[in-house]
Amino acid sequence: MNKKMNILMFSGDYDKALTALILANTAKEMDIEVTIFFAFWGLLLVRNPNSMSEEDKTAYEKMFANMTPRYLEDLPLSKMNFAGMGKKMLKEMMEDKEAPTLTDFLNGAIEKGIRMQACKLSCEIMGFKQNELLDNVEIVTAEDYLKDALESNIQLFI
Amino acid sequence: MNKKMNILMFSGDYDKALTALILANTAKEMDIEVTIFFAFWGLLLVRNPNSMSEEDKTAYEKMFANMTPRYLEDLPLSKMNFAGMGKKMLKEMMEDKEAPTLTDFLNGAIEKGIRMQACKLSCEIMGFKQNELLDNVEIVTAEDYLKDALESNIQLFI
Amino acid sequence: MNKKMNILMFSGDYDKALTALILANTAKEMDIEVTIFFAFWGLLLVRNPNSMSEEDKTAYEKMFANMTPRYLEDLPLSKMNFAGMGKKMLKEMMEDKEAPTLTDFLNGAIEKGIRMQACKLSCEIMGFKQNELLDNVEIVTAEDYLKDALESNIQLFI
Repeated sequence: MNKKMNILMFSGDYDKALTALILANTAKEMDIEVTIFFAFWGLLLVRNPNSMSEEDKTAYEKMFANMTPRYLEDLPLSKMNFAGMGKKMLKEMMEDKEAPTLTDFLNGAIEKGIRMQACKLSCEIMGFKQNELLDNVEIVTAEDYLKDALESNIQLFI
Repeated sequence: MNKKMNILMFSGDYDKALTALILANTAKEMDIEVTIFFAFWGLLLVRNPNSMSEEDKTAYEKMFANMTPRYLEDLPLSKMNFAGMGKKMLKEMMEDKEAPTLTDFLNGAIEKGIRMQACKLSCEIMGFKQNELLDNVEIVTAEDYLKDALESNIQLFI
Repeated sequence: MNKKMNILMFSGDYDKALTALILANTAKEMDIEVTIFFAFWGLLLVRNPNSMSEEDKTAYEKMFANMTPRYLEDLPLSKMNFAGMGKKMLKEMMEDKEAPTLTDFLNGAIEKGIRMQACKLSCEIMGFKQNELLDNVEIVTAEDYLKDALESNIQLFI
């Protein structure tokens, strides 16, 4: 029987998302089943940048949708100013090594069929509608998350 | 036999605490046994706002007790300035949806009998006495945490 | 058979590292096998302060090596400005209680034979060579991390 890993992706930081998606892709290649549950800031990782609906949004929701990064590569680092090293520097270092970007890893995860879920309550609070998320993302409840996590061999909160 | 979940609550951030307590409450409703071990900044979630003892405190402990938020609703976001979205905006968005506050979720957890523990070493370093914590919170060691975590099906560090 | 704990140490923050190493040392004393996998900022915890090689480094790697803290005790707090409480204050409070420092806990972990691994990809991106890490640290892949985590009873992302 396949082993399972469940990642609760709370953070919307570039460096944490990179780590989560590298783990997820590597696990999937090892035949480990992977579910990522995107909650809170993590929702910013599964926005559909080409589909932002202004309809049915409150003033706050519109403001939020417009103020937060629309594209993956624009997400900040968890330590923006850590020792003065900025996001630009990290990305240059990654480019030097021809390391894939966050977008590459996310696309890889989608192609590999990694299960992606968005937290229903987070979507409601932040005002994200199903059509504003990537196609493969399913909106589920905290109860669904817990059921999947209980069946998993590894659970991480990132 | 009941399934178990153990949360090590390290962070004192409003958004992370909200996520932890929603998971804890949902799990308990699913008959999953839940233990939350509050360490470091997490201790700020289980302060008794009506009982701050100045006795037996060093100068630093007094300063710390007075400078940190006394009330749950005053805790900061993990991303205070994330894309310029402040705490106020999040709380307004939650109110719009009539979502419960952090205080509501903590009270729910207490009523449901979710086990709450405070890290002994953290209490010692930060100078928190038993009477400064909520009544249902028991002070335990890292060893006690590990024993509970070992018996749990899900362990999260938040 | 021994129980196992696996910690993925992503953060380079003083307070989070302290928590991770206290858990690791306590677990080891309880005969729990412990592996710590240092990735991303976590690599800063296992630098060898006496061995920094400028050779074979790109301009960015040199800049990064010189701008990030060389010594454990110089690592920042995850909440540097949390309620105005700085790192100095925490360290004074720890000294008052004669609590060991982060360096003490790391040395304890090394003496106890806690397995320490550095993430290969993180080393490559940040330009850390084997001789720039502490002697007991082995460079391994994300796949190695996952194998160890799968066999562990507790997995934490810190």
